[in-house]
Amino acid sequence: MTANQKIVLDNRPAVEASLSNFKLVSETMPALQDGQVLVKHHYLSLDPYMRGRMNDSKSYAASQGIGEVMIGGTVGEVVESKHAKYAVGDKVVGMGGWQQYSIVDGNAVGALRKVQDGPIPLSAYLGAVGMPGVTAWYGLLKICEPKAGETVVVNAASGAVGSAVGVLAKSRGCRVVGIAGGAEKCAYVVNELGFDACIDYKAQSDGKSFNAALKAAAPNGIDCFFENVGGWMSDVILARMNAFGRIAVCGMISRYDGASPPLANPAIILVSRLKMQGFIVSEHMEVWPEALKELGGLVASGKLRARESIAEGIENAPEAFLGLLKGRNFGKQLVKLI
Amino acid sequence: MTANQKIVLDNRPAVEASLSNFKLVSETMPALQDGQVLVKHHYLSLDPYMRGRMNDSKSYAASQGIGEVMIGGTVGEVVESKHAKYAVGDKVVGMGGWQQYSIVDGNAVGALRKVQDGPIPLSAYLGAVGMPGVTAWYGLLKICEPKAGETVVVNAASGAVGSAVGVLAKSRGCRVVGIAGGAEKCAYVVNELGFDACIDYKAQSDGKSFNAALKAAAPNGIDCFFENVGGWMSDVILARMNAFGRIAVCGMISRYDGASPPLANPAIILVSRLKMQGFIVSEHMEVWPEALKELGGLVASGKLRARESIAEGIENAPEAFLGLLKGRNFGKQLVKLI
Repeated sequence: MTANQKIVLDNRPAVEASLSNFKLVSETMPALQDGQVLVKHHYLSLDPYMRGRMNDSKSYAASQGIGEVMIGGTVGEVVESKHAKYAVGDKVVGMGGWQQYSIVDGNAVGALRKVQDGPIPLSAYLGAVGMPGVTAWYGLLKICEPKAGETVVVNAASGAVGSAVGVLAKSRGCRVVGIAGGAEKCAYVVNELGFDACIDYKAQSDGKSFNAALKAAAPNGIDCFFENVGGWMSDVILARMNAFGRIAVCGMISRYDGASPPLANPAIILVSRLKMQGFIVSEHMEVWPEALKELGGLVASGKLRARESIAEGIENAPEAFLGLLKGRNFGKQLVKLI
Repeated sequence: MTANQKIVLDNRPAVEASLSNFKLVSETMPALQDGQVLVKHHYLSLDPYMRGRMNDSKSYAASQGIGEVMIGGTVGEVVESKHAKYAVGDKVVGMGGWQQYSIVDGNAVGALRKVQDGPIPLSAYLGAVGMPGVTAWYGLLKICEPKAGETVVVNAASGAVGSAVGVLAKSRGCRVVGIAGGAEKCAYVVNELGFDACIDYKAQSDGKSFNAALKAAAPNGIDCFFENVGGWMSDVILARMNAFGRIAVCGMISRYDGASPPLANPAIILVSRLKMQGFIVSEHMEVWPEALKELGGLVASGKLRARESIAEGIENAPEAFLGLLKGRNFGKQLVKLI
């Protein structure tokens, strides 16, 4: 009998999420039934979308039930199997949730994906070679459709999505400008990821100085904007976009703890003939094989050296998640469970 | 020697445009040079885009020079020709401006387009079978891409663009909901154009009642939104859009006399995975032949019975234009010049 520890949603946040919304629960896993697989998680992925599911309101996914284990992507290994397709020791990616173990129906389509441990490290399957990487790939290539010589701007540039956007855009001959919070993150974006420039929004924290920095970093204007954040900086970015610019709307993190700030001048969409499109990568599973192949190559070759912030132990997942919402992470936020 | 009267931009509006921004000027037209054509205008088109050109600021077109004749589409007849391609009596559409006559270089590509007088009336070439009609065609078919059974919403529905959007969408098997100001306009939209429903925004003038009316008129949600107006009603419309909805941004008339109102909740673009795209029809000349063919057929067959508001005499163009900006017109605003 396997002892499991898990984090469940205990109650919904009134406005800001806090530790009191979560509860650590111990349980004994039931015996496997035919067709099931027991997975021991090595890493749990923490992502901003989880905040939306803590609300009862409309988001782009069903809200999380009270008392249920928090949803989340995991990578781990099969430790017991009653399914012919999976053997003990297989490394698998799935949606195991905020817990140490999960029992998975081996027949459910897409529930588990077998991966190789090396040369790509297991944790990367939750980041650059996983959902965040494919998110970058889809939004950049299918919505922004950048051409060589164009200028691409991405915010949250040191994060799992942003870093992949930048490396993918560079590989297509674009000028890439990142936006990140702090000199350390900006140095990583430019020196390790190869962005052409990075604006530290903490150092350029008013509209005028941010605009001046953006003008200097993108002297030919902006053709593609990969939107991970939202808020007043987006207004400044939109105003600097060239005619026929494309905006992939991937995240508006300022929404997760309350209302979304307005878009100050939507008429710019008409004036500059912009295309602005929201997307969720899980609705475009058809691109995953192609995207994962390219992303795996970029990671294996060292071109995409994604940073990770790693918390230790399932009991520390809530605090790490709250830190993520406040931007305290540097790169992909993970929880190490073994 | 031909006597001409024209309206020039005398000075730029501080905020709201007024009669004092315009000046009526009399002149004698110079003698024609080889290759030139003298056109006597029958009708002048008045359109919201002209307001943007009265400003000195960035719009989607160059601003209008002080002292220059106001720009505008015209339909008329050739009264003198020094170009082999044009004969006296030819009916032509062009950009003759706010004046009785214009001299046109017959060799300039696209400067004049010959049209037939009947069964389509000449004035229709400035409306349903002209720029407004092609605007509707492009935005609806190339950006919204409606499918049979989907719900299309268009505001300024009784106008030249809106009426064509509705008739084109109906012909493709969509449910079409118009938004217009006043019971008379709504009756026309439903009874003469064949829309499925029309919301009188003057009768539903707060967000709650407008939302309730929209819910009743579009019970399956909204798949396509053809945006001619902007402002708070757009926030309500966006919130009622289905996943993967498409928004063609054609006009934000509330901008022309001052600032654009903000978009209250841009996160809806992500939550509902919307595509929002601005466009200007003059940048898509490749679709004009196909669009004009369909629009001409709809007008000739009586399916598209576009309304016109007709002012008389070039001296009354400024007042008619200001009325257009305030929504006083009913259908396409024209000035009759003969």
